[in-house]
Amino acid sequence: MNYKIDNLQYCKWSREVFEINRQADLDAVHVTVVYHEDYDEFLKRLKEWDDHFKNNSDLIFLGKNFNDIEKAHKEEKTAIFFGFQNCSPIEDDIGLIEKVHEHGCRFMQLTYNNQSLLATGCYEKNDSGVTNFGREAIKEMNKIGIVVDMSHSAEKSTLDAIEISEKPIAITHANPAFWHSANRNKSKNLLKTLAESKGMLGLSLYPHHLKNGTNCKLDSFCEMTAQTVDIMGINNVGIGSDLCLFQPDAVVEWMRNGTWAKQKNFGEGNKSKPGFPEQPDWFRDARGFKNLENGFKKVGFSEEEINKILGNNWFNFYKGIN
Amino acid sequence: MNYKIDNLQYCKWSREVFEINRQADLDAVHVTVVYHEDYDEFLKRLKEWDDHFKNNSDLIFLGKNFNDIEKAHKEEKTAIFFGFQNCSPIEDDIGLIEKVHEHGCRFMQLTYNNQSLLATGCYEKNDSGVTNFGREAIKEMNKIGIVVDMSHSAEKSTLDAIEISEKPIAITHANPAFWHSANRNKSKNLLKTLAESKGMLGLSLYPHHLKNGTNCKLDSFCEMTAQTVDIMGINNVGIGSDLCLFQPDAVVEWMRNGTWAKQKNFGEGNKSKPGFPEQPDWFRDARGFKNLENGFKKVGFSEEEINKILGNNWFNFYKGIN
Repeated sequence: MNYKIDNLQYCKWSREVFEINRQADLDAVHVTVVYHEDYDEFLKRLKEWDDHFKNNSDLIFLGKNFNDIEKAHKEEKTAIFFGFQNCSPIEDDIGLIEKVHEHGCRFMQLTYNNQSLLATGCYEKNDSGVTNFGREAIKEMNKIGIVVDMSHSAEKSTLDAIEISEKPIAITHANPAFWHSANRNKSKNLLKTLAESKGMLGLSLYPHHLKNGTNCKLDSFCEMTAQTVDIMGINNVGIGSDLCLFQPDAVVEWMRNGTWAKQKNFGEGNKSKPGFPEQPDWFRDARGFKNLENGFKKVGFSEEEINKILGNNWFNFYKGIN
Repeated sequence: MNYKIDNLQYCKWSREVFEINRQADLDAVHVTVVYHEDYDEFLKRLKEWDDHFKNNSDLIFLGKNFNDIEKAHKEEKTAIFFGFQNCSPIEDDIGLIEKVHEHGCRFMQLTYNNQSLLATGCYEKNDSGVTNFGREAIKEMNKIGIVVDMSHSAEKSTLDAIEISEKPIAITHANPAFWHSANRNKSKNLLKTLAESKGMLGLSLYPHHLKNGTNCKLDSFCEMTAQTVDIMGINNVGIGSDLCLFQPDAVVEWMRNGTWAKQKNFGEGNKSKPGFPEQPDWFRDARGFKNLENGFKKVGFSEEEINKILGNNWFNFYKGIN
């Protein structure tokens, strides 16, 4: 069986988005439920998702484990897996890890760009690695069944997390820095260590992570994928598109700034381009999976290898979560 | 005019404690209102303080600036200044700094032992210094009039805070490490840098910060004070007793553990001595200020110097807060 999985989206959710994901044959999507929200605010986001599930039960349902990906495939629906891009919902309380899992959380980033209580983000000047609380949180996440996601974390923190975690971790959405140098992209050494620990990299289609941004060529992306597979092996690479379909620019401003500064931060953007960047024309939305398939063929991947990258690797990774 | 100020207490507050502080002639006490509480929990602590002020208006009132220390002295009362031993009440929101100030907060530690969103605590393995949010928070605290307190912070974070802050910072309760080596005590280099920036050190009477703990001799403490003055000058040293009068052991357990670990941490204590240590017999409570006065005389301090250490230095520091 072959599965198609996009392991990171943060769209402005609507029936239209769920339909697009079905047109792309996505069996599962890991969706970001929370950026900076605390526990109570997370519960509010859940209510919004309750409505999405009710109003679109012909297209989506809440995924809890890998069986739900098989179920989604059979029923021609998309299983939605919840994740957080920051650890804010567990606040300073290790007891909340179990609670957020009960509410469906399966992936949690230890940091989002800045320092958190658990680890250092990739936009900090110095990286002290996983903290005392972080060490405890990782152990608890391992026990409970929440994947440690280090997409927005700094390098030492990520290496620490790999070492501390007894289960493979994930970088759900980022690209290698050798292809495009960006705070958010990852070093060869880190990707190698990640793969050796059976961790997964989800390749990102977010323009700030792409060589030449919006103008990135499909060929270039696929060649980068081949080079990444050379480093990480064929079983540890998947897709985490980071699609933010239909989100207004106010949302990217909030992602970057949260409530921690009085002046504006532009993160990966800049003063003249503060908003969401435009997607490349070969990946405007998840239907671009088809273009990836063609592009991967052109750079010499076999059908089996392509299926691994487009979903089967993530499916196998999900098998190990619980 | 001479003032007596204890710039850190976290007692189990009661009329008895306020009476003891009056017997010690304390014109002002900086009290810890919050350890790990978030903003809403801080508001609950405030209600408890409302009751203390109502029920003991003949002994105490809320201090807002240095004028209230003069007022307290005239009225033979103790002005109570609020402070936090962690930055948890501002959560991840720089806007809350103004709010906590409106509610009386005048001192805030950037960290309590562990990593916070602002800086690194002295019980972490690595110290990445003041974070992005920390930098913004310090600027805002400077603007609003809340003192940066680095008592429980790690060294690089403290040096960063001194550099970033446009106003002098404080280490309200700690001792020099040359006298007693402890995670919480401070290096000569740090104390020198603190004094050069016109920052204050409040010498601690908490047994874990004392040479020989509970059995520490008054002479030894006073000799250490003289050596510290040699390093820092006579205008930058005061008292921050860290008295935890009448607190049950459950409180020190909560201070150390908060809610960040499932297993117990013993902090400065250990498994066989998990509770509060006993105070030395010459400083059972604030009435020990009298013993300090005598001890300081014996090691050669002049009356003016003694008055500086026992309160006038803190009084002058308070003048600069707003």
